[in-house]
Amino acid sequence: MNKVTQLYEGKAKKVWTTEDPELLIVDYKDDATAGNGAKKGTIHDKGIINNRVTNHLMKMLEKEGVPTHLVEEISDRETIVKKVTIVPLEVIVRNIAAGSLSKRIGLPEGTPMKKTVLEYCYKDDALGDPMVNEYHILAMEWCTKEELDLIAKYALKVNEVLSAYLKEVNIQLIDFKLEFGKLSDGTIVLADEISPDTCRFWDTVTHEKLDKDRFRRDMGGEEDAYKEVMKRLMGE
Amino acid sequence: MNKVTQLYEGKAKKVWTTEDPELLIVDYKDDATAGNGAKKGTIHDKGIINNRVTNHLMKMLEKEGVPTHLVEEISDRETIVKKVTIVPLEVIVRNIAAGSLSKRIGLPEGTPMKKTVLEYCYKDDALGDPMVNEYHILAMEWCTKEELDLIAKYALKVNEVLSAYLKEVNIQLIDFKLEFGKLSDGTIVLADEISPDTCRFWDTVTHEKLDKDRFRRDMGGEEDAYKEVMKRLMGE
Ligand SMILES: Nc1ncnc2c1ncn2[C@@H]1O[C@H](COP(=O)(O)OP(=O)(O)O)[C@@H](O)[C@H]1O
Ligand SMILES: Nc1ncnc2c1ncn2[C@@H]1O[C@H](COP(=O)(O)OP(=O)(O)O)[C@@H](O)[C@H]1O
Ligand SMILES: [Mg+2]
Ligand SMILES: [Mg+2]
Repeated sequence: MNKVTQLYEGKAKKVWTTEDPELLIVDYKDDATAGNGAKKGTIHDKGIINNRVTNHLMKMLEKEGVPTHLVEEISDRETIVKKVTIVPLEVIVRNIAAGSLSKRIGLPEGTPMKKTVLEYCYKDDALGDPMVNEYHILAMEWCTKEELDLIAKYALKVNEVLSAYLKEVNIQLIDFKLEFGKLSDGTIVLADEISPDTCRFWDTVTHEKLDKDRFRRDMGGEEDAYKEVMKRLMGE
Repeated sequence: MNKVTQLYEGKAKKVWTTEDPELLIVDYKDDATAGNGAKKGTIHDKGIINNRVTNHLMKMLEKEGVPTHLVEEISDRETIVKKVTIVPLEVIVRNIAAGSLSKRIGLPEGTPMKKTVLEYCYKDDALGDPMVNEYHILAMEWCTKEELDLIAKYALKVNEVLSAYLKEVNIQLIDFKLEFGKLSDGTIVLADEISPDTCRFWDTVTHEKLDKDRFRRDMGGEEDAYKEVMKRLMGE
């Protein structure tokens, strides 16, 4: 399987077509951005870590009944995935208040939510990925009601599986962002990535941040934090 | 029934206790604000128009099966209402894109929504009445699932009844904001007001704005617009 043409270069990954029209190669970069591209930098070896962590977690999720786009890891930074039409939503799952939710409703970071919170943001950089609700999604026909119900079900399942798994390695899953897509036959699968770029991971005991917030907030130590996550998850 | 003590002075109304602990008197002012209080002014006789329009519409809604706080209009600007504990949500119903929705999702003002859109904003001036979703509402326990389902059902019913009624007087109901509250026995009722302050009304033919957007956007003619709404609704 070879890269044929570059389909897209995003903020964190490049996406290539292959000889198979149903498959793509995702190539993870070290580039890091925050604030919808306002802050730019690099995190050394982030691409390697995010590629491996994503695939490790997606394999586990497949076993637990969540279909994913994962086909095969082919190098440190490259993975073959099933081509999907991305549902233009960032699906956010929150266990503990942090980030934009803390600001939005005035809840101090670290406050446990009494129920798991799902949020949807419309994937549109020019609009700043605005938060939307189910009514907007259905009125705008970004997906159907059946697809949205399935996406919500999968998102909550991902939260269950990952929260339990991460707890065993002393990581608290604060919140995370997922993207879903549709295969050519219409099947909804989990796509994109699951990594310290897209999750908030806190050390269960020290509450130390092990994720992109270190970069976003100029805290330093992001490289060590990403490595620590990989070590705890994959023993290396 | 007399005013006893002023319970609250809001941006558009004063609320008074009465001798009856279950009843309040609402007193409509001419004060107008926009942008969460950033812009301030007055609209001559607005208080009179909003009091009368609100009561006129709430009477109609009661007949159509939507319980309201309305008890009795006692003067041009004053109405006796049932005291409620306000559910801290602004419930917004949208038929046509306008205002913050147009900005949020990049849809030009005047675009019909393919399905009616409901939005909830958390009533908190300090936070700028942020948009929230059902998960936030239930996790924060601002109301129960049963209450929220009933509120959504009533909001859609209000939209049906008012849209049809306004159409007969050549007014298009673009969007509007409702507030609901709980009586001491827990019953959910429609509270607050329904007026050109809280609705977007467009002339069906000319698309002329007959609502607070004239004030918000410094268009002028707000007094005539409010009067015109009252005239079309109540023949005076
Ligand atoms: N299986 C897939 N098929 C097609 N597109 C995908 C798939 N998985 C992820 N994508 C998309 O590829 C892009 C990945 O690059 P990324 O750097 O994350 O982009 P962005 O800057 O938009 O976040 C994203 O737009 C993502 O939605
Ligand atoms: N039946 C009611 N019982 C108690 N409070 C009410 C009732 N109806 C409306 N309210 C509340 O009274 C206030 C009305 O004043 P208003 O000027 O609209 O206030 P605001 O500046 O908060 O919008 C609002 O806070 C509204 O939620
Ligand atoms: Mg991305
Ligand atoms: Mg008000």
